[in-house]
Amino acid sequence: MDRIKIIDVHEDVLANNDRAAAALRARLRDAGTLLINLMSSPGSGKTTLLKATLDALGGESGELGESGESGGLAVGVMEADVDSDVDAYAVQRHGARAVQLHTGGMCHLDAAMCEQGLRELGIEGLDLVFIENVGNLICPAEFDTGAARKVMILSAPEGHDKPLKYPLMFEVSDVVIVSKMDVAQYFDFSLEELERNVRARNPYARIMPLSAKTGEGMEQWVEWLRAEVAAWQQ
Amino acid sequence: MDRIKIIDVHEDVLANNDRAAAALRARLRDAGTLLINLMSSPGSGKTTLLKATLDALGGESGELGESGESGGLAVGVMEADVDSDVDAYAVQRHGARAVQLHTGGMCHLDAAMCEQGLRELGIEGLDLVFIENVGNLICPAEFDTGAARKVMILSAPEGHDKPLKYPLMFEVSDVVIVSKMDVAQYFDFSLEELERNVRARNPYARIMPLSAKTGEGMEQWVEWLRAEVAAWQQ
Repeated sequence: MDRIKIIDVHEDVLANNDRAAAALRARLRDAGTLLINLMSSPGSGKTTLLKATLDALGGESGELGESGESGGLAVGVMEADVDSDVDAYAVQRHGARAVQLHTGGMCHLDAAMCEQGLRELGIEGLDLVFIENVGNLICPAEFDTGAARKVMILSAPEGHDKPLKYPLMFEVSDVVIVSKMDVAQYFDFSLEELERNVRARNPYARIMPLSAKTGEGMEQWVEWLRAEVAAWQQ
Repeated sequence: MDRIKIIDVHEDVLANNDRAAAALRARLRDAGTLLINLMSSPGSGKTTLLKATLDALGGESGELGESGESGGLAVGVMEADVDSDVDAYAVQRHGARAVQLHTGGMCHLDAAMCEQGLRELGIEGLDLVFIENVGNLICPAEFDTGAARKVMILSAPEGHDKPLKYPLMFEVSDVVIVSKMDVAQYFDFSLEELERNVRARNPYARIMPLSAKTGEGMEQWVEWLRAEVAAWQQ
């Protein structure tokens, strides 16, 4: 009797997604739009960081980077959420072109959903687009969205042991932002231990402790963004 | 031409899981073991709460509830994690019988995984077993593990808007524990707003603000657990 063919659906889904993501990334390179996939747990401060980042970048809706005014970049944001659209309104008020993506219960964005979102947003004239991914440290790490760079946020209250528990997220991230540093002192949180735990998983990630509330550490992050946009547009 | 049959894999998976969960729940009822599914974001303080709960319950590994000493309940814990086993050792030191479940990248536990874990743990003589589910506010809400009660933890630093963004988790939970109340004052967090947001999704959930660190609010939680065990064992 012939053997039953076993289909690994999960791997197949991921392989198809990887192809779609690579094609999307190539198109974004041609368009000169840097797409950043911002991932974190629920409540780590993604939206607060985005608002502070928009203010620091001096980006305004529709204002193009080539206008050169105060080095302003034209920025778009795709807010992915299982439900609600409070965040899209919030970032729009800080000068970004914004759309809200409802994932319909899905715990992550894939390349197809991202592409659909970019079509709705319209990338013409945008230097930089952030995906605010669904708050989740597991599934979003597995799915390439087509973004050029992956940035994760870990808030200090979540604890320095998280790289041990959610290793893939830390492995795939180019930057690990450590948010809410202004309140780190009230928690059993050690930046040194976090750095050690991140390094064990990912020797190359940049680690950026900051507070979007006080502004501490924001320059390093904003400079990194400007440099990445410049490199992407060359 | 006949129509192609469309199979909704997701619903099928959930229906099969629901059947397995109901059968497991019936067996746990016969055994007199109350299974609690503890869910939250990463870093919300699940393990810290569990350790404080074990201390408050006065449970010791292998000590049976019927021994009656200081009202101690015999407690087991299944620690579900994508990786690492630091938490299983931690709760064992606080008197629980513990096993670590590695989900192999999966973002939630289903009834079959839970059943396998209970087999490894051994429920004989246990009054109460906690599942410390994978840190995730989305997928675990969809999967019935066979637990008698669902308890979610939201830490104050995560913010009072979370019921708007992760509605299903709040809808399915019997208890919403609000953890880290000792540091709530350092955040833009309103317990009243949280209660309003929870109530809009789930009028029946018990909301229990507490701090496992200071002990504030722990009695209400421990009393609820004792009452639920007593009711389950009748």
